[in-house]
Amino acid sequence: MNRETDDSHLVWENLDSEIRYDAGIFRLRSVRRRSPEGKHAPFVSVDAPDWVTIIPELAGDGGGMPSFLIVRQYRHGTEKVGLEFPAGVIDPGENPAQAAARELLEETGFIASELREIGSVSPNPAFMTNRTFTYLARGLEKVAELNLDEHEILDVHKVVFSDLEMMLGQAPYDSAITLQAWFFYLRASGRL
Amino acid sequence: MNRETDDSHLVWENLDSEIRYDAGIFRLRSVRRRSPEGKHAPFVSVDAPDWVTIIPELAGDGGGMPSFLIVRQYRHGTEKVGLEFPAGVIDPGENPAQAAARELLEETGFIASELREIGSVSPNPAFMTNRTFTYLARGLEKVAELNLDEHEILDVHKVVFSDLEMMLGQAPYDSAITLQAWFFYLRASGRL
Repeated sequence: MNRETDDSHLVWENLDSEIRYDAGIFRLRSVRRRSPEGKHAPFVSVDAPDWVTIIPELAGDGGGMPSFLIVRQYRHGTEKVGLEFPAGVIDPGENPAQAAARELLEETGFIASELREIGSVSPNPAFMTNRTFTYLARGLEKVAELNLDEHEILDVHKVVFSDLEMMLGQAPYDSAITLQAWFFYLRASGRL
Repeated sequence: MNRETDDSHLVWENLDSEIRYDAGIFRLRSVRRRSPEGKHAPFVSVDAPDWVTIIPELAGDGGGMPSFLIVRQYRHGTEKVGLEFPAGVIDPGENPAQAAARELLEETGFIASELREIGSVSPNPAFMTNRTFTYLARGLEKVAELNLDEHEILDVHKVVFSDLEMMLGQAPYDSAITLQAWFFYLRASGRL
Protein backbone atom coordinates (compact mmCIF):
# COMPACT_ATOMS: atom_id res chain seq x y z
CA MET A 1 0.00 0.00 0.00
CA ASN A 2 1.36 3.39 -1.02
CA ARG A 3 0.94 5.72 1.93
CA GLU A 4 1.69 8.75 -0.27
CA THR A 5 -1.71 8.45 -1.86
CA ASP A 6 -3.80 6.24 0.44
CA ASP A 7 -4.84 8.19 3.54
CA SER A 8 -7.45 5.73 4.78
CA HIS A 9 -5.39 5.01 7.91
CA LEU A 10 -5.50 8.74 8.81
CA VAL A 11 -9.03 9.90 8.01
CA TRP A 12 -11.73 10.22 10.69
CA GLU A 13 -15.39 9.82 9.79
CA ASN A 14 -18.03 12.32 10.98
CA LEU A 15 -20.77 10.83 13.16
CA ASP A 16 -22.81 13.83 14.29
CA SER A 17 -22.30 17.46 15.19
CA GLU A 18 -23.99 20.22 17.14
CA ILE A 19 -23.58 24.01 17.34
CA ARG A 20 -22.50 24.89 20.88
CA TYR A 21 -22.21 28.66 20.73
CA ASP A 22 -22.87 31.41 18.19
CA ALA A 23 -20.18 34.05 18.65
CA GLY A 24 -21.30 36.24 15.75
CA ILE A 25 -17.95 36.20 13.92
CA PHE A 26 -17.96 32.39 14.12
CA ARG A 27 -19.93 29.45 15.50
CA LEU A 28 -18.47 26.84 17.77
CA ARG A 29 -19.40 23.29 16.80
CA SER A 30 -18.83 20.01 18.58
CA VAL A 31 -18.32 17.02 16.28
CA ARG A 32 -18.16 13.34 17.15
CA ARG A 33 -15.89 11.36 14.86
CA ARG A 34 -14.80 7.74 14.42
CA SER A 35 -11.13 6.98 13.87
CA PRO A 36 -9.90 4.47 11.26
CA GLU A 37 -9.50 1.96 14.13
CA GLY A 38 -13.10 2.55 15.26
CA LYS A 39 -12.50 4.80 18.30
CA HIS A 40 -15.14 7.49 18.92
CA ALA A 41 -14.06 10.94 20.14
CA PRO A 42 -15.42 14.50 20.30
CA PHE A 43 -13.68 17.40 18.55
CA VAL A 44 -14.44 21.09 18.44
CA SER A 45 -14.42 23.29 15.37
CA VAL A 46 -14.66 27.03 14.83
CA ASP A 47 -16.99 27.55 11.85
CA ALA A 48 -16.05 30.93 10.43
CA PRO A 49 -16.78 32.55 7.06
CA ASP A 50 -13.81 32.80 4.71
CA TRP A 51 -11.54 35.83 5.07
CA VAL A 52 -9.51 38.04 2.73
CA THR A 53 -6.26 39.90 3.29
CA ILE A 54 -5.21 42.62 0.84
CA ILE A 55 -1.63 43.73 0.19
CA PRO A 56 -1.95 47.27 -1.19
CA GLU A 57 1.31 47.96 -3.04
CA LEU A 58 2.19 51.54 -4.03
CA ALA A 59 4.76 51.75 -6.82
CA GLY A 60 8.11 53.27 -5.81
CA ASP A 61 9.25 56.53 -7.41
CA GLY A 62 11.56 56.17 -10.41
CA GLY A 63 12.08 52.42 -10.14
CA GLY A 64 12.52 52.48 -6.35
CA MET A 65 11.16 49.93 -3.90
CA PRO A 66 7.38 49.85 -3.40
CA SER A 67 5.49 50.98 -0.29
CA PHE A 68 2.46 49.37 1.33
CA LEU A 69 -0.68 50.53 3.09
CA ILE A 70 -0.91 49.08 6.58
CA VAL A 71 -3.72 49.50 9.11
CA ARG A 72 -3.03 50.24 12.75
CA GLN A 73 -5.79 49.12 15.10
CA TYR A 74 -6.62 47.69 18.50
CA ARG A 75 -6.99 43.90 18.33
CA HIS A 76 -9.51 42.31 20.63
CA GLY A 77 -7.75 38.93 20.86
CA THR A 78 -4.29 40.14 21.82
CA GLU A 79 -5.63 43.29 23.61
CA LYS A 80 -2.89 45.26 21.86
CA VAL A 81 -2.52 47.64 18.96
CA GLY A 82 -1.20 45.81 15.89
CA LEU A 83 -0.16 46.75 12.35
CA GLU A 84 -1.51 44.45 9.67
CA PHE A 85 -2.52 44.42 6.04
CA PRO A 86 -6.18 45.35 5.51
CA ALA A 87 -8.37 42.28 6.00
CA GLY A 88 -11.89 41.18 6.69
CA VAL A 89 -14.68 38.67 6.35
CA ILE A 90 -16.22 37.68 3.00
CA ASP A 91 -19.86 38.68 3.32
CA PRO A 92 -22.74 36.41 2.17
CA GLY A 93 -23.17 36.70 -1.60
CA GLU A 94 -19.65 38.07 -2.17
CA ASN A 95 -16.79 36.28 -3.88
CA PRO A 96 -13.27 36.74 -2.47
CA ALA A 97 -12.31 39.39 -5.08
CA GLN A 98 -15.39 41.47 -4.28
CA ALA A 99 -14.67 41.25 -0.55
CA ALA A 100 -11.04 42.26 -1.16
CA ALA A 101 -12.10 45.34 -3.16
CA ARG A 102 -14.70 46.30 -0.54
CA GLU A 103 -12.39 45.88 2.45
CA LEU A 104 -9.61 47.81 0.70
CA LEU A 105 -11.99 50.71 0.03
CA GLU A 106 -13.58 50.66 3.51
CA GLU A 107 -10.33 50.40 5.47
CA THR A 108 -8.08 52.65 3.34
CA GLY A 109 -10.27 54.70 0.96
CA PHE A 110 -8.31 53.32 -2.03
CA ILE A 111 -9.44 51.44 -5.13
CA ALA A 112 -7.11 49.24 -7.19
CA SER A 113 -6.93 48.92 -11.01
CA GLU A 114 -5.37 45.44 -10.50
CA LEU A 115 -6.55 43.05 -7.80
CA ARG A 116 -5.12 39.55 -8.07
CA GLU A 117 -5.42 36.48 -5.84
CA ILE A 118 -1.92 35.31 -4.94
CA GLY A 119 -2.71 32.50 -2.50
CA SER A 120 -5.13 30.88 -0.07
CA VAL A 121 -4.64 28.72 3.01
CA SER A 122 -6.40 27.46 6.10
CA PRO A 123 -5.77 29.89 9.00
CA ASN A 124 -5.63 26.94 11.37
CA PRO A 125 -6.34 23.42 10.09
CA ALA A 126 -6.59 21.99 13.62
CA PHE A 127 -9.91 23.62 14.45
CA MET A 128 -10.88 26.31 11.93
CA THR A 129 -13.10 25.31 9.01
CA ASN A 130 -12.53 28.38 6.83
CA ARG A 131 -9.94 29.62 4.35
CA THR A 132 -8.21 32.96 4.03
CA PHE A 133 -7.46 34.42 0.58
CA THR A 134 -4.64 36.86 -0.09
CA TYR A 135 -4.94 39.55 -2.77
CA LEU A 136 -2.27 41.79 -4.24
CA ALA A 137 -3.68 45.26 -5.03
CA ARG A 138 -1.84 47.48 -7.53
CA GLY A 139 -2.69 50.65 -9.43
CA LEU A 140 -4.02 52.27 -6.27
CA GLU A 141 -6.01 55.50 -6.21
CA LYS A 142 -7.45 57.30 -3.20
CA VAL A 143 -11.12 57.93 -3.91
CA ALA A 144 -12.84 58.17 -0.54
CA GLU A 145 -12.49 58.60 3.18
CA LEU A 146 -12.54 55.52 5.42
CA ASN A 147 -15.91 53.81 5.82
CA LEU A 148 -15.55 51.62 8.87
CA ASP A 149 -17.79 49.06 10.53
CA GLU A 150 -19.62 50.17 13.66
CA HIS A 151 -16.91 49.09 16.12
CA GLU A 152 -13.87 49.58 13.89
CA ILE A 153 -11.34 52.33 14.67
CA LEU A 154 -8.10 52.40 12.69
CA ASP A 155 -5.31 54.51 11.23
CA VAL A 156 -3.73 53.92 7.83
CA HIS A 157 0.05 54.08 7.46
CA LYS A 158 2.35 53.95 4.46
CA VAL A 159 5.40 51.75 5.03
CA VAL A 160 8.28 51.28 2.58
CA PHE A 161 9.41 47.79 1.58
CA SER A 162 12.75 47.85 3.43
CA ASP A 163 11.15 48.99 6.71
CA LEU A 164 8.35 46.46 6.45
CA GLU A 165 10.76 43.63 5.62
CA MET A 166 12.76 44.46 8.75
CA MET A 167 9.81 44.88 11.13
CA LEU A 168 7.58 42.00 10.01
CA GLY A 169 7.42 39.22 12.57
CA GLN A 170 7.97 41.48 15.57
CA ALA A 171 5.40 43.42 17.59
CA PRO A 172 3.40 45.33 16.51
CA TYR A 173 3.82 43.58 13.11
CA ASP A 174 3.28 40.14 14.68
CA SER A 175 0.23 38.57 13.08
CA ALA A 176 0.46 35.11 11.50
CA ILE A 177 -2.18 36.15 8.96
CA THR A 178 -0.09 39.10 7.80
CA LEU A 179 3.03 36.88 7.64
CA GLN A 180 1.38 34.20 5.50
CA ALA A 181 0.17 36.99 3.17
CA TRP A 182 3.74 38.32 2.96
CA PHE A 183 4.99 34.85 1.96
CA PHE A 184 2.59 34.90 -1.00
CA TYR A 185 3.65 38.48 -1.83
CA LEU A 186 7.34 37.52 -1.90
CA ARG A 187 6.55 34.60 -4.21
CA ALA A 188 4.23 36.61 -6.49
CA SER A 189 6.74 39.45 -6.84
CA GLY A 190 9.61 37.10 -7.70
CA ARG A 191 11.48 37.61 -4.43
CA LEU A 192 11.45 33.93 -3.40
CA MET B 1 -0.31 64.77 18.89
CA ASN B 2 1.96 62.17 17.34
CA ARG B 3 -0.22 59.26 16.28
CA GLU B 4 2.85 57.08 15.71
CA THR B 5 3.30 56.72 19.44
CA ASP B 6 0.00 57.77 21.05
CA ASP B 7 -2.60 55.04 20.57
CA SER B 8 -5.17 56.40 23.04
CA HIS B 9 -7.66 57.01 20.19
CA LEU B 10 -7.49 53.31 19.27
CA VAL B 11 -7.45 51.40 22.56
CA TRP B 12 -10.58 49.83 24.06
CA GLU B 13 -10.89 49.36 27.81
CA ASN B 14 -12.05 46.07 29.34
CA LEU B 15 -15.24 46.30 31.42
CA ASP B 16 -16.03 42.69 32.33
CA SER B 17 -15.71 39.24 30.84
CA GLU B 18 -17.24 35.80 31.17
CA ILE B 19 -16.27 32.31 29.99
CA ARG B 20 -19.00 31.08 27.63
CA TYR B 21 -17.74 27.65 26.66
CA ASP B 22 -14.85 25.37 27.60
CA ALA B 23 -13.77 23.52 24.47
CA GLY B 24 -10.82 21.72 26.06
CA ILE B 25 -8.21 23.02 23.61
CA PHE B 26 -9.43 26.58 24.30
CA ARG B 27 -12.05 28.54 26.21
CA LEU B 28 -14.47 30.95 24.60
CA ARG B 29 -14.79 34.21 26.48
CA SER B 30 -17.17 37.11 25.99
CA VAL B 31 -15.71 40.53 26.89
CA ARG B 32 -17.50 43.86 27.16
CA ARG B 33 -15.28 46.80 26.25
CA ARG B 34 -15.56 50.59 26.12
CA SER B 35 -14.21 52.41 23.06
CA PRO B 36 -12.16 55.61 23.32
CA GLU B 37 -15.36 57.54 22.47
CA GLY B 38 -17.26 55.78 25.27
CA LYS B 39 -19.28 53.23 23.24
CA HIS B 40 -19.85 49.87 24.92
CA ALA B 41 -19.73 46.66 22.86
CA PRO B 42 -19.29 42.90 23.35
CA PHE B 43 -16.39 41.00 21.77
CA VAL B 44 -15.49 37.33 21.77
CA SER B 45 -12.06 35.86 22.39
CA VAL B 46 -10.59 32.38 22.06
CA ASP B 47 -8.39 31.85 25.12
CA ALA B 48 -5.88 29.20 24.09
CA PRO B 49 -2.55 28.13 25.59
CA ASP B 50 0.52 29.18 23.59
CA TRP B 51 1.64 26.88 20.79
CA VAL B 52 4.97 25.80 19.29
CA THR B 53 5.89 24.83 15.74
CA ILE B 54 9.17 23.03 15.09
CA ILE B 55 11.10 23.09 11.79
CA PRO B 56 13.23 19.93 11.85
CA GLU B 57 16.05 20.54 9.36
CA LEU B 58 18.18 17.61 8.18
CA ALA B 59 21.53 18.67 6.72
CA GLY B 60 21.97 17.96 3.02
CA ASP B 61 24.65 15.52 1.85
CA GLY B 62 27.94 17.11 0.82
CA GLY B 63 26.82 20.73 1.01
CA GLY B 64 23.49 20.04 -0.70
CA MET B 65 20.15 21.57 0.21
CA PRO B 66 18.59 20.50 3.53
CA SER B 67 15.52 18.31 3.99
CA PHE B 68 12.73 18.67 6.53
CA LEU B 69 10.54 16.37 8.60
CA ILE B 70 6.87 16.99 7.90
CA VAL B 71 3.87 15.35 9.55
CA ARG B 72 0.91 14.11 7.54
CA GLN B 73 -2.32 13.94 9.50
CA TYR B 74 -6.08 14.41 9.39
CA ARG B 75 -7.04 17.92 10.52
CA HIS B 76 -10.32 18.27 12.37
CA GLY B 77 -10.93 21.89 11.33
CA THR B 78 -10.53 21.51 7.58
CA GLU B 79 -11.69 17.84 7.60
CA LYS B 80 -8.77 17.06 5.28
CA VAL B 81 -5.34 15.49 5.46
CA GLY B 82 -2.66 18.17 5.66
CA LEU B 83 1.15 18.26 5.71
CA GLU B 84 2.60 20.58 8.33
CA PHE B 85 5.65 21.04 10.49
CA PRO B 86 5.36 19.27 13.86
CA ALA B 87 3.45 21.48 16.30
CA GLY B 88 1.51 21.41 19.52
CA VAL B 89 0.37 23.09 22.69
CA ILE B 90 2.74 24.25 25.43
CA ASP B 91 1.69 22.24 28.49
CA PRO B 92 1.31 23.82 31.96
CA GLY B 93 4.74 24.20 33.58
CA GLU B 94 6.63 23.97 30.29
CA ASN B 95 8.52 26.78 28.59
CA PRO B 96 8.34 27.02 24.78
CA ALA B 97 11.73 25.31 24.26
CA GLN B 98 10.71 22.34 26.43
CA ALA B 99 7.42 22.02 24.53
CA ALA B 100 9.28 22.16 21.20
CA ALA B 101 11.67 19.38 22.25
CA ARG B 102 8.78 17.25 23.57
CA GLU B 103 6.56 17.69 20.50
CA LEU B 104 9.49 16.96 18.17
CA LEU B 105 10.22 13.72 20.01
CA GLU B 106 6.56 12.64 20.30
CA GLU B 107 5.61 13.39 16.69
CA THR B 108 8.81 12.31 14.90
CA GLY B 109 10.94 10.25 17.34
CA PHE B 110 13.87 12.67 16.82
CA ILE B 111 15.89 14.75 19.26
CA ALA B 112 17.85 17.88 18.27
CA SER B 113 21.30 18.97 19.45
CA GLU B 114 20.34 22.55 18.53
CA LEU B 115 16.88 23.96 19.17
CA ARG B 116 16.57 27.69 18.63
CA GLU B 117 13.57 30.06 18.75
CA ILE B 118 13.42 31.93 15.45
CA GLY B 119 10.18 33.91 15.92
CA SER B 120 6.83 34.28 17.63
CA VAL B 121 3.54 35.85 16.55
CA SER B 122 -0.14 35.93 17.36
CA PRO B 123 -1.95 33.25 15.32
CA ASN B 124 -4.90 35.62 14.96
CA PRO B 125 -4.87 38.98 16.74
CA ALA B 126 -8.58 39.58 16.04
CA PHE B 127 -9.83 36.97 18.48
CA MET B 128 -7.06 34.67 19.71
CA THR B 129 -5.29 35.57 22.95
CA ASN B 130 -2.28 33.26 22.55
CA ARG B 131 1.07 33.31 20.78
CA THR B 132 2.76 30.69 18.64
CA PHE B 133 6.54 30.18 18.85
CA THR B 134 8.63 28.79 16.01
CA TYR B 135 11.74 26.70 16.67
CA LEU B 136 14.45 25.61 14.28
CA ALA B 137 15.73 22.12 15.16
CA ARG B 138 19.15 21.03 13.89
CA GLY B 139 21.52 18.20 14.70
CA LEU B 140 18.68 15.67 14.50
CA GLU B 141 18.96 12.10 15.67
CA LYS B 142 16.28 9.40 15.60
CA VAL B 143 16.09 7.93 19.10
CA ALA B 144 12.56 6.58 19.50
CA GLU B 145 9.34 5.54 17.84
CA LEU B 146 6.43 7.97 17.72
CA ASN B 147 4.64 8.59 21.01
CA LEU B 148 1.34 10.14 20.07
CA ASP B 149 -1.53 11.61 22.06
CA GLU B 150 -4.62 9.44 22.46
CA HIS B 151 -6.41 10.74 19.36
CA GLU B 152 -3.38 11.54 17.21
CA ILE B 153 -2.61 9.50 14.10
CA LEU B 154 0.14 10.71 11.78
CA ASP B 155 2.84 9.76 9.32
CA VAL B 156 6.25 11.42 9.13
CA HIS B 157 7.70 12.38 5.76
CA LYS B 158 11.07 13.73 4.68
CA VAL B 159 10.81 16.52 2.11
CA VAL B 160 13.74 18.24 0.39
CA PHE B 161 14.02 22.03 0.38
CA SER B 162 13.28 22.51 -3.32
CA ASP B 163 10.14 20.35 -3.21
CA LEU B 164 8.88 22.02 -0.05
CA GLU B 165 9.53 25.50 -1.42
CA MET B 166 7.47 24.66 -4.49
CA MET B 167 4.58 22.97 -2.67
CA LEU B 168 4.18 25.29 0.33
CA GLY B 169 1.03 27.39 0.17
CA GLN B 170 -0.96 24.81 -1.82
CA ALA B 171 -3.02 21.89 -0.53
CA PRO B 172 -2.06 19.77 1.31
CA TYR B 173 0.71 22.19 2.44
CA ASP B 174 -1.82 24.97 3.06
CA SER B 175 -1.65 25.92 6.73
CA ALA B 176 -1.08 29.56 7.71
CA ILE B 177 0.79 28.36 10.81
CA THR B 178 3.26 26.39 8.71
CA LEU B 179 3.67 29.36 6.32
CA GLN B 180 4.45 31.85 9.09
CA ALA B 181 7.01 29.35 10.46
CA TRP B 182 8.58 29.11 6.99
CA PHE B 183 8.91 32.92 6.86
CA PHE B 184 10.96 32.79 10.06
CA TYR B 185 13.00 29.89 8.66
CA LEU B 186 13.84 31.80 5.48
CA ARG B 187 14.93 34.79 7.56
CA ALA B 188 16.93 32.71 10.07
CA SER B 189 18.74 30.79 7.34
CA GLY B 190 19.69 33.97 5.46
CA ARG B 191 17.38 33.33 2.53
CA LEU B 192 15.39 36.60 2.89
